[in-house]
Amino acid sequence: MTGREVRLAARAGALTGPTAGLAPGFVQGNLVILPGASAADFATFCERNPRPCPVIGMTQTGVPNVPALGADLDLRTDLPRYRVWRQGTLTDEITDISRLWREDLVGFVLGCSFTFEHALIAAGIPLKHLAAGRNVAMYRTNVACEPAGPFAGPLVVSMRPLSAGHAQLAIEITGRFTSAHGAPMHVGDPTAIGISNISSPDYGDAVEIATSELPVFWACGVTPQAALANARVPFAITHAPGCMLVTDLTVAA
Amino acid sequence: MTGREVRLAARAGALTGPTAGLAPGFVQGNLVILPGASAADFATFCERNPRPCPVIGMTQTGVPNVPALGADLDLRTDLPRYRVWRQGTLTDEITDISRLWREDLVGFVLGCSFTFEHALIAAGIPLKHLAAGRNVAMYRTNVACEPAGPFAGPLVVSMRPLSAGHAQLAIEITGRFTSAHGAPMHVGDPTAIGISNISSPDYGDAVEIATSELPVFWACGVTPQAALANARVPFAITHAPGCMLVTDLTVAA
Repeated sequence: MTGREVRLAARAGALTGPTAGLAPGFVQGNLVILPGASAADFATFCERNPRPCPVIGMTQTGVPNVPALGADLDLRTDLPRYRVWRQGTLTDEITDISRLWREDLVGFVLGCSFTFEHALIAAGIPLKHLAAGRNVAMYRTNVACEPAGPFAGPLVVSMRPLSAGHAQLAIEITGRFTSAHGAPMHVGDPTAIGISNISSPDYGDAVEIATSELPVFWACGVTPQAALANARVPFAITHAPGCMLVTDLTVAA
Repeated sequence: MTGREVRLAARAGALTGPTAGLAPGFVQGNLVILPGASAADFATFCERNPRPCPVIGMTQTGVPNVPALGADLDLRTDLPRYRVWRQGTLTDEITDISRLWREDLVGFVLGCSFTFEHALIAAGIPLKHLAAGRNVAMYRTNVACEPAGPFAGPLVVSMRPLSAGHAQLAIEITGRFTSAHGAPMHVGDPTAIGISNISSPDYGDAVEIATSELPVFWACGVTPQAALANARVPFAITHAPGCMLVTDLTVAA
């Protein structure tokens, strides 16, 4: 499948679940939609925190398209599943947001680690969570994001256990993906970034770390969702975890 | 002088003119300040046009500081001279905007070619406009920016005449300055980008092109001012031409 075929399947209601592994080689993205009154501060939050929040596309106010990511792309229908937030609280999970779209909404598409996972696998680096058919393990850290207006919160990281040799190779490879979180934020001792119990992730699924492996931590696209919850903005829409926007951009690494 | 010393001189009213050549080695930036209602669309305009509009800092709504660019930086006082725009028309040029600051304003700092000119000179590339004590020559092209909401308009470029060898070296050097317009947009025939009379720039001062030289064109930070005028936003503030924000960031090339 191409990125466009994934979007058309979501638009038709045929695809309502995760996009991991679909349309290999096409860039995937996190989605955040906010009213204009909050959007400028969120743009500033992204500008100040480019590792967890790399903006790869934005809409103009009230127009649910991002032509640079797909000529016929429509943010209201083209993701498999959305989350609706009111006052910072998750209130609904739906597969189409056409009825919720408003003239004052602004959409942000942020880079996603699904983009670099293909490149890691292509380089012969095994990723346990994919092999086990699970979601990646994610943790809230004690590293604070740079705040902007109401948006503030901890850096959230994803973790992949790798051998020392694979960790070094993964640092090199992901360092090239500056629009998809880039190189790891941290390698090794989880307590150094405030993670007290590595076997109990805050989001996603736990994964075992063998004695021959190091935990490798990347900035994660869940970070803005944590900031969104903290900000208690009156209204917001995001993708549902794992159910990303698949774009027409191809992965160049 | 350091970047901070330039800002303090502007704040004290002792510096009210251009910043070219001041605080060598410190990053300088263009300033655009807009009400929140227009700010999200302007952020989208910058995201869609990163070559002319590379965002290097943003304020949160109503707070005139950009800590990442200078701990005590205050956008209301720290530039030598500002332009005030109403309905897209230039209405005033002043040296302090404290009385005009509002709770709904958002400031954008965009990268500036003053940053890479130091590196060109350091590499032995002569820049005629600096030698002559003039402003760089700037032109409106027939290349359209990607529009976003009310913001649309032509790409504006700056031009520097260079020998073929220096042009090649300048392409290499400025290509590293991705936050200051990057590599040239065009080298050679001005008519290819819609410039019919190279001896009559739309902004800045004319400069002679010797028969041994090529005109080399870079995306220019005046581009957003052209888009601002087109957008006829009710209220905006920018720096006055040449009177930039000087930051604490040092030039790393």
